[in-house]
Amino acid sequence: MPDRPIPTLHDIISARKVVNQHLKPTPLHFYNSLSELLDAQVWVKHENHQPAGAFKVRGGVNLAAGLSEAEKKRGLFTASTGNHGQSIAYAARVQGIRAVIAVPEGANPAKVNAMRRLGAEVRFHGPDFDSAREWIMAEAQAQGGHYVGPTEEALICGVGSYVLEIVEELPDLDAIIVPVGGGSSASAAGIVLKNINEKIEVIGCQSAQAPAAQLSWAAGKIVTAPMKTFAEGVATRVPFENTQRIMRQYLDDFLLVDDREIEAAILLYLQLTHNLAEGAGAIPLATALKHKARFAGKKIVLVLSGGNLHVEKLRSIISRHRGH
Amino acid sequence: MPDRPIPTLHDIISARKVVNQHLKPTPLHFYNSLSELLDAQVWVKHENHQPAGAFKVRGGVNLAAGLSEAEKKRGLFTASTGNHGQSIAYAARVQGIRAVIAVPEGANPAKVNAMRRLGAEVRFHGPDFDSAREWIMAEAQAQGGHYVGPTEEALICGVGSYVLEIVEELPDLDAIIVPVGGGSSASAAGIVLKNINEKIEVIGCQSAQAPAAQLSWAAGKIVTAPMKTFAEGVATRVPFENTQRIMRQYLDDFLLVDDREIEAAILLYLQLTHNLAEGAGAIPLATALKHKARFAGKKIVLVLSGGNLHVEKLRSIISRHRGH
Repeated sequence: MPDRPIPTLHDIISARKVVNQHLKPTPLHFYNSLSELLDAQVWVKHENHQPAGAFKVRGGVNLAAGLSEAEKKRGLFTASTGNHGQSIAYAARVQGIRAVIAVPEGANPAKVNAMRRLGAEVRFHGPDFDSAREWIMAEAQAQGGHYVGPTEEALICGVGSYVLEIVEELPDLDAIIVPVGGGSSASAAGIVLKNINEKIEVIGCQSAQAPAAQLSWAAGKIVTAPMKTFAEGVATRVPFENTQRIMRQYLDDFLLVDDREIEAAILLYLQLTHNLAEGAGAIPLATALKHKARFAGKKIVLVLSGGNLHVEKLRSIISRHRGH
Repeated sequence: MPDRPIPTLHDIISARKVVNQHLKPTPLHFYNSLSELLDAQVWVKHENHQPAGAFKVRGGVNLAAGLSEAEKKRGLFTASTGNHGQSIAYAARVQGIRAVIAVPEGANPAKVNAMRRLGAEVRFHGPDFDSAREWIMAEAQAQGGHYVGPTEEALICGVGSYVLEIVEELPDLDAIIVPVGGGSSASAAGIVLKNINEKIEVIGCQSAQAPAAQLSWAAGKIVTAPMKTFAEGVATRVPFENTQRIMRQYLDDFLLVDDREIEAAILLYLQLTHNLAEGAGAIPLATALKHKARFAGKKIVLVLSGGNLHVEKLRSIISRHRGH
């Protein structure tokens, strides 16, 4: 299969116009408290304030808006147990089209309910994510619908709208720290920022308990790795070739932090900014803390990518970290 | 003392222009999940997304911007252990002026730090809030500075900007539910909405463990009452005459909910919307749940007034409500 073309800055600027028709810009807040802690000037991009609680919805609305009338009639098909599924459900509702989302049997009922409330048809299939995904791909083909892969170019372009918002509000940022799951967000950050000012550092980050994307980036080829992190937004076992190619071109570095450090960052966000971050969303803060000297004195943006953390998980984090 | 004039819709429209120079509008989100739960169409006004985590900052920036140059030189003086102090500190920083905030000895260190990070001078004085307040009033007089009372008209007018944002985005709302502490927010909601469409219901709400404002409203005169709620944003022991007068004129009703119901609403917000609400911020949701039949089928707006909840308090709420 020939390489798919890498989206350009122009593609992302065009997608932003579409995204703006459906979603408002999210806040970019400066925090004194985090700045003191990190000896840096620290801004947070609040993608946790999106309607579905995560940045992915930007990609979904761009993809759905770009379908032909014939494609819209046949609907969107995808597999997901988390933010991606909610994003596609949201985007389908905005366009008034059908969304069919496959989830493994035993999927989190809260997330299934969230997708259903957005009007999606949820189909349980197979014991794990991969079997649900294989089933829905076949189903999309049988019904002539559009199967949405997790790192499609239309998703990357839509997601890039958040990076444009950052650079327009804070054009002299020195570095951005972005969590990597499938890689669409970090890819978009690289395309936008490096084409505007190559001196802006673009740093990817991930859980050390799910390092496949980082190992693949470092090795220059796709590598799989064990996946044990609680941070489902970055729980990637098999990386994606298209986003890996973009990240190899554009990322300055790709850092790992332990789940325990991610949990501590969730608590810090809660205590110092009163924002609920999901695991993936807290990784940039954990990364900045771990590599404090590297970012000292700089203007840095932490991407708080989502806030969909389960209440029981939050309780256990608070309990275990008490008094630390 | 003669009655102070009640702010008008025009005053609030004028104040909004000032507020907009310093603060962005906050989101008004529709939630499927809350709508199903309440059998109504439910929007949430996200004042928890303000920079200092609560609506009060709107009032602070309006008040500070309206000072004369001579007043600016002498600075702002107030007493607070919570959101009001952070709001005044934030507003003073925006104007580049001095803020002196009195807190009782033993005040919450996290809140003291937050005020200091915003550049305020924090003075510890006396064993409780009232002694800190009396001390700072004398200090303001001695230094010729402006003492900021919690329900000044300039604060009410600035706060009213959130109500204008709501009615412009959702002009056909049927009812709004607003938490009452000092009463500036509910007063502003009444002035704006009743002057635009008197059929829009404006409902105040408070903790039954701190019912002074509700009892005073019902009695038509100032009544004090025990104050035992954990929801410090509505922990009013002695109500304020000026906001009581406005609320008597404009509120359709004033409802009470128990602290236990407020805690359950905090958990619901966390589970269904992934937003952290402080006690006061969750009271409108608790009220809508308790009076479900009254709001069934209507378009209602819940004012999520702030998100400044202590992590340890959140942990204890989650633990106690597990499995409910």
